[in-house]
Amino acid sequence: MAEKRWAFEDFAEGTSISLGTKHVTAEEIIEFASEFDPQPFHLDEEVGKAGILGGLSASGWHTCCMFMRMMCDAFLLDSTSQGAPGIDHAKWRKPVLAGDTLSGRSTVLARRTSQSRPRLGFVTCRHELFNQNGETVFELQNTGMFMRRSAA
Amino acid sequence: MAEKRWAFEDFAEGTSISLGTKHVTAEEIIEFASEFDPQPFHLDEEVGKAGILGGLSASGWHTCCMFMRMMCDAFLLDSTSQGAPGIDHAKWRKPVLAGDTLSGRSTVLARRTSQSRPRLGFVTCRHELFNQNGETVFELQNTGMFMRRSAA
Repeated sequence: MAEKRWAFEDFAEGTSISLGTKHVTAEEIIEFASEFDPQPFHLDEEVGKAGILGGLSASGWHTCCMFMRMMCDAFLLDSTSQGAPGIDHAKWRKPVLAGDTLSGRSTVLARRTSQSRPRLGFVTCRHELFNQNGETVFELQNTGMFMRRSAA
Repeated sequence: MAEKRWAFEDFAEGTSISLGTKHVTAEEIIEFASEFDPQPFHLDEEVGKAGILGGLSASGWHTCCMFMRMMCDAFLLDSTSQGAPGIDHAKWRKPVLAGDTLSGRSTVLARRTSQSRPRLGFVTCRHELFNQNGETVFELQNTGMFMRRSAA
C-alpha cells in the first residue's frame, strides 16, 4: 500500500484542514431530493421562496453528503481511514440554497489510541461548512478511525 | 392545504411507526459512492470482500439517505413536518451490503411544544434500520419540528 499523507499521528489536537469549495446548483438539489428527500421545499423553487427557507434549499442530508465528498477530496482518500462508527451530533444552522458556494474546515478536537487494537486510533473532529457570506451553515462532530503510521 | 395524516398531536410518546422495506442493490451503492463517498470499499466488491466489512458495503451516508426516503414514504410527506435542526446522534452498527433488504421503525421518545412558537412542537424519535437477518444496522436519534393540528 502506498504511503498515505494522513495517518493517526498527523491529526494532532488543534490541527485544522481546509475542505476546499463546492458550488451548489439547483439541478443537484432537485436530483438529490427526488431520490432521497422529496419534500416540496427541496423540489420546487417557488415553494422554497414562499417558505421560511427563503429559496430552493438543499436537503440537510444532501448537505451531509456534499460535506462527505469535500472531506474525501481534502484528506480522507489520502489517509489511513478505517471509517467511522457514527455521528456524534450535527446541526443544520442555515439553509443551503441553490447558487451557494460552500467552503469548509475540519478541526481535530481530541484523539486517542484504541485499547483493544493498538494499531488503530480514534480522531474526534468538528467539521464546519460556510456559505459565500461567511455564515456557518452546517456543523458536525464525529469520531473517525485511522491506522497509526507505524502500522500502515 | 389538505389535512395531513400526521401532526404534532399524533406523535404520542411510545408511538412506533413502521418504515416499510428497501432492497439495496450494488448499482445503487456504487452510484452513491461515486458521487459522495468514493472510498474503495464502497466502489469495488473485491475490495469490500477483502476488508473487515465483508462485501460491497453502502456508505454510511447512503444508509442515512435511504433511511430518510423510507421515513418520507412512511409518514413524513403526509405530516406537518417543518424540518429538523440537526441530528442528535447516529450509529452505523453493521455494514449494509449489496443484496440486503432493510426494514425500519421510528419510535417517539419525547415531545414538547415550542415556547417561542406555540403552533409548533418538537418530536424526538429513535429511528432504527434492520437487515433481513433482524440485525440492527443503523440507529439515529433526532428531533423534528411539526405543526400542531389545531394550527395546521
